[in-house]
Amino acid sequence: MNCPVGQSRTDQHSSDKLFFSYQQMEPVSLPPLSRVAICGGTHGNEMSGVYMVKELQKQKADQTGSVSVTTVLTNPRAVDACRRYIEIDLNRCFTDALLSAPVTDSTPYELRRARELNAQLGPKGSPEAVDLLCDIHNTTANMGMCLIFYSLDWITLHIYKYIKSKMTSTPVRAIQLDIPNSEAYSLESVGKHGFAIEVGPQPNGVVRADIFNMVREAVDLTKEWLQAFNSGNTFAGGEVEAYTLVRSVDYPRDPTTSDITAAIHPQLQDNDFKLLRPGNPTFLSFSGETVKHEGDELYPFFVNECAYYEKKIAFHLARKITLTFPSVSVKKD
Amino acid sequence: MNCPVGQSRTDQHSSDKLFFSYQQMEPVSLPPLSRVAICGGTHGNEMSGVYMVKELQKQKADQTGSVSVTTVLTNPRAVDACRRYIEIDLNRCFTDALLSAPVTDSTPYELRRARELNAQLGPKGSPEAVDLLCDIHNTTANMGMCLIFYSLDWITLHIYKYIKSKMTSTPVRAIQLDIPNSEAYSLESVGKHGFAIEVGPQPNGVVRADIFNMVREAVDLTKEWLQAFNSGNTFAGGEVEAYTLVRSVDYPRDPTTSDITAAIHPQLQDNDFKLLRPGNPTFLSFSGETVKHEGDELYPFFVNECAYYEKKIAFHLARKITLTFPSVSVKKD
Repeated sequence: MNCPVGQSRTDQHSSDKLFFSYQQMEPVSLPPLSRVAICGGTHGNEMSGVYMVKELQKQKADQTGSVSVTTVLTNPRAVDACRRYIEIDLNRCFTDALLSAPVTDSTPYELRRARELNAQLGPKGSPEAVDLLCDIHNTTANMGMCLIFYSLDWITLHIYKYIKSKMTSTPVRAIQLDIPNSEAYSLESVGKHGFAIEVGPQPNGVVRADIFNMVREAVDLTKEWLQAFNSGNTFAGGEVEAYTLVRSVDYPRDPTTSDITAAIHPQLQDNDFKLLRPGNPTFLSFSGETVKHEGDELYPFFVNECAYYEKKIAFHLARKITLTFPSVSVKKD
Repeated sequence: MNCPVGQSRTDQHSSDKLFFSYQQMEPVSLPPLSRVAICGGTHGNEMSGVYMVKELQKQKADQTGSVSVTTVLTNPRAVDACRRYIEIDLNRCFTDALLSAPVTDSTPYELRRARELNAQLGPKGSPEAVDLLCDIHNTTANMGMCLIFYSLDWITLHIYKYIKSKMTSTPVRAIQLDIPNSEAYSLESVGKHGFAIEVGPQPNGVVRADIFNMVREAVDLTKEWLQAFNSGNTFAGGEVEAYTLVRSVDYPRDPTTSDITAAIHPQLQDNDFKLLRPGNPTFLSFSGETVKHEGDELYPFFVNECAYYEKKIAFHLARKITLTFPSVSVKKD
């Protein structure tokens, strides 16, 4: 999320850095990760996060060994209404520009709430920010368990590798959004490190036990890793595959009404992360015609996500990349 | 929906009538079924009906042989907002009492809309009502294709038998709600005959091509049957299995907050219509405890339906019954 001290994002993104072997990378020492925030309800109708946070608050597990855990139901009004948001999407409010814009009488609820959260868990980019911010989401797309994060961040990559090695109930994947931290719009960008847990398929407004248990496992494994890190364990470097956004595809729409005129094709539906080749079906129109994929071979994800109809996104397309990271251990005083 | 002329509901419900053989039943002649309404968007976030109706309106297929088809997007404000309803659930507004209650300034939008629909497609119980009203719904529960109707109605049962014999893409089932027509609360009760098409699983706010195509097939088969009936075909009597509601089960809840404290158990989730025996798991609490079914062996349905959280229903329980119906043909002038 935020880059480790002494590493610039640009350096990390240059191709020679991306593809050199992790054996050549210098081990990295980082400060302890003692203040962690687990958040849910950023989208008020994504129930895994809502009930996970409520359950953690009930257990009053504020301190797990070396890790102090803050739990936050981030958009309480949207949770009460069981809607994604009240006025605007809270999870698009955390850019530097939006967090510093003047507040007026017409400032939407979610922008005000973003500032409160930034004061409580950040400020973003400051030494006071929580060490790790984990925000729980779910999707109607068949995405299994995904960790979504911005630029390269050794801590997030190590946690991802750990969760992937331990979870067997669903595929675990990483999605990297290539956006500078100042423009990173979602809540997890407020922490020094951070990621979103995105899990599906689960309808909005519904909690499924299988999906809830995946989230619980990912949260438990994250805390487990943080404890081991703080205790002085060294985690060997390595490499992981990740998906990085190339472009988004909208539904076919009626030019007059803007209504969608097709659904995701049955051969694409539920096939997130299955390589889409030119000529593969993407949409089936309501009158029965098939639309086919054109262009490069790419990996679809967020296929038929409910909340993206209004954002004019039927699915995202990604390419697969390899991310290389050094061994890490806690910095001794 | 409404009983055929000369048949009283009570008679049809008495057990000796229900269980005598259909071979003993007198053939029934009924007037032609020439005016049909296909409705969607009664719940504004159930997209199969919304897009089915829009597609039918685009095709301008107002007349199919002997059948004149009226298509209605029944709750346009809820469709625009992509919400189940604006003020109250429209599909609970069609009892005789609610349709005849005085309108005041504080009458909710949906009650006003119910009267408009009753004027357009009914009035309920009158000779002016459409001959058949088919209202399209979808559910987050794994219910496949269901036809839901109130009291015994030979026409609906014949259409159900026809659809079941032709559809192979998903199980087709019948659900009978044992409520007198005057107290029948949903839109289809406005027609002389009527049923709801309920299909799932599909998240609210999402349209899936597979689910959409099931709805299209059921609508096409209904029109096909009506044409054949009006043309003078005789349809042999028979018997079908149906599910009838026994009781509903709520989620375990926190006595203080009323928050749910458990999700549907993974062994019950997606297993609608699979016999639930005493001791079978029904809920898995967020802290990991299993709750088990107590009482009779019954069939669960509407398991984890999104809209029923607020109605305090985790699932319904049904018993299976056999419905017997006579041969039918059109009444000659």
